[in-house]
Amino acid sequence: MTASAKFVRSVDAISSEEIFAAHEGGKLSVAVERPLATKRDLSIAYTPGVAQVSRAIAADPSLARTHTWASRLVAVVSDGTAVLGLGDIGPSASLPVMEGKSALFKTFAGLDSIPIVLDTTDVDEIVETIVRIAPSFGAVNLEDVAAPRCFELEARLIEALDMPVMHDDQHGTAVVVLAALTNAATVVGKELSSMRAVIAGAGAAGIAIAEILLASGLTDVVLLDSKGAIHAGRGDLAEPRNAMKAEYAARTNPRRVAGGTAEALAGADVFIGVSSSTVPEEHLAGMAEGAIVFALSNPDPEVAPDVAARHAAVVATGRSDFPNQINNVLAFPGIFRGALDAGARRITPAMKIAAARAIAGLALDGLSADYIVPSPLDPRVAPAVTAAVAAAVVPGE
Amino acid sequence: MTASAKFVRSVDAISSEEIFAAHEGGKLSVAVERPLATKRDLSIAYTPGVAQVSRAIAADPSLARTHTWASRLVAVVSDGTAVLGLGDIGPSASLPVMEGKSALFKTFAGLDSIPIVLDTTDVDEIVETIVRIAPSFGAVNLEDVAAPRCFELEARLIEALDMPVMHDDQHGTAVVVLAALTNAATVVGKELSSMRAVIAGAGAAGIAIAEILLASGLTDVVLLDSKGAIHAGRGDLAEPRNAMKAEYAARTNPRRVAGGTAEALAGADVFIGVSSSTVPEEHLAGMAEGAIVFALSNPDPEVAPDVAARHAAVVATGRSDFPNQINNVLAFPGIFRGALDAGARRITPAMKIAAARAIAGLALDGLSADYIVPSPLDPRVAPAVTAAVAAAVVPGE
Repeated sequence: MTASAKFVRSVDAISSEEIFAAHEGGKLSVAVERPLATKRDLSIAYTPGVAQVSRAIAADPSLARTHTWASRLVAVVSDGTAVLGLGDIGPSASLPVMEGKSALFKTFAGLDSIPIVLDTTDVDEIVETIVRIAPSFGAVNLEDVAAPRCFELEARLIEALDMPVMHDDQHGTAVVVLAALTNAATVVGKELSSMRAVIAGAGAAGIAIAEILLASGLTDVVLLDSKGAIHAGRGDLAEPRNAMKAEYAARTNPRRVAGGTAEALAGADVFIGVSSSTVPEEHLAGMAEGAIVFALSNPDPEVAPDVAARHAAVVATGRSDFPNQINNVLAFPGIFRGALDAGARRITPAMKIAAARAIAGLALDGLSADYIVPSPLDPRVAPAVTAAVAAAVVPGE
Repeated sequence: MTASAKFVRSVDAISSEEIFAAHEGGKLSVAVERPLATKRDLSIAYTPGVAQVSRAIAADPSLARTHTWASRLVAVVSDGTAVLGLGDIGPSASLPVMEGKSALFKTFAGLDSIPIVLDTTDVDEIVETIVRIAPSFGAVNLEDVAAPRCFELEARLIEALDMPVMHDDQHGTAVVVLAALTNAATVVGKELSSMRAVIAGAGAAGIAIAEILLASGLTDVVLLDSKGAIHAGRGDLAEPRNAMKAEYAARTNPRRVAGGTAEALAGADVFIGVSSSTVPEEHLAGMAEGAIVFALSNPDPEVAPDVAARHAAVVATGRSDFPNQINNVLAFPGIFRGALDAGARRITPAMKIAAARAIAGLALDGLSADYIVPSPLDPRVAPAVTAAVAAAVVPGE
């Protein structure tokens, strides 16, 4: 298979030596905003001057927003249990990813952030820990936390903290998928809400994608996990760990499709893979005319793009070496920046959908089957998402 | 009192407007070490390249030391209970101080650090919290934690963490006091170990100063708290919260001096004030010939320097507008940098004494009653302390 061979080649094009050299000493540093060169500088930034600022914040806590870095600082929090495609590799091994995330926040949205990796995977303990250190920052980007714990963790942190909290593996992905799907629907000349969608993978990303598609008006959404289509009749969904899937069994799959990808894809308009599995070509062959295939697993998509293209009118992947890269970096920097700029206490569904629309809007000029989302390096993206998200904030919400 | 008037004027010389303006938006930012300008940069620092580094750390955890920023990152941890002279003002109000501390770490020792302020003052909870986030950093600088909790907290964190931990209000202060006292002894022609020392204030700084003086050979050390001299006969020392004082009652004050500063200072060679109280001039008059007075409370010393000078041969304060400024910044940047450079797991008494000697050594050229410690801005200090501390690290300790 030529395309698969191409994947391997592209990753290998950067040598391990170069990758490791670029990580030596880490990828972040802390910078001092105003130089401390004189006794006067010290007297302003430290004692005795700083006491005036501390005293003022003690008297009026709202001044912490304007006179410390914390209110605009994002904590990139992970327990290292679902890191990239590597799984549960622990907090220390997850750090290079979290540093990379912080680098993206800074590069694309000018937001400062600090990686906080956790030596616990217990939801109670994580919530307790983050709440205790919460005065140190102004928002929480949860990252690479395994499903199904990630759902409970995010919900409880949102409840416990008076600041924006978002699990990017869920919602960052879902926002970019919605943006891409909106434009793909235009390309194939279909109505977004009337399309039949199949999502392979019912983990963090799959569930959040289902959620945002339902919120965007799609009604025929089928989620697949390793046991096949999720439907209300499946017995294993009664297990406590499958509570989230049971909820979506009730809210998706109105035709009660059972079976695997073959059954689910028969007549489907959209396939979205976030499963690290593979889809046989013959199953794609059963999709509707003008099919849309988003094979998003990294580094190996569920199906090679050239194979998918034999049966689909629009193909997207998560990879930078193919057209239509669906990459979270299009969403999360602007979502957090917009939320913080507007003083939002929550990241609401309306803010996420506003982000998706902003991303989609930037690809309308030149829209084609090979250009349904802007490039992750497009400098217009983060400012547009920031503005759209900030505008969607309801004051006091 | 002219000198007191001068204190006030000096603080006022910098306007509140200028101080608040310098704190707007906070004093720190996060910088990205290598720019993310191209798809290739993204592929190295983030997916897919970063996966190689994460996988390597998962296989060999020691690589986290060399390929993340955490191993050289200092967490500046505070619960905001003893901030400067302001007391228990809480975590958010303490943040400007912690940001200032991080700015000092960067400026003087090139060390990255992040403020972690805590919404709990419970020692069990703080230890638990710091242990859980510990994979995120490589050392802990405890800051502005009230006594007596600070003693238990530091001891338990040292026990729980496999990294350098130091409460700077204790040991940073003690190291600089020892450096200054070593040189002051030379100036007045006395032997350090044979001097009688009186320490007013038995909080974080006072206890640590007593400890380092005992470790340096002084035997006649009298600690004073708000109830007067601490001696083995004092009944209130049986209370659990006074456990630390009871320990020092047994190890200090061999002549069993009772009473207040008048009694303690009679014939004393050294007065060290870390109490935020005042010392009447007539009590200083009772000190020995060639007396040494370190009036270190900020912003108002226990006694005005010109008043102290009527009775003492050497006078030092914590203030930048008088000679002989005893300032922690002479110690902590180099102590942490030296410990991290040498891969130390603990900050030992030997490392602290090495730091004090290095600081004292830098003031020998030009030593006088008005120059017993180098200036906090002397660029030789942090490198000298770093080297001395690193050299004092016993491998594996």
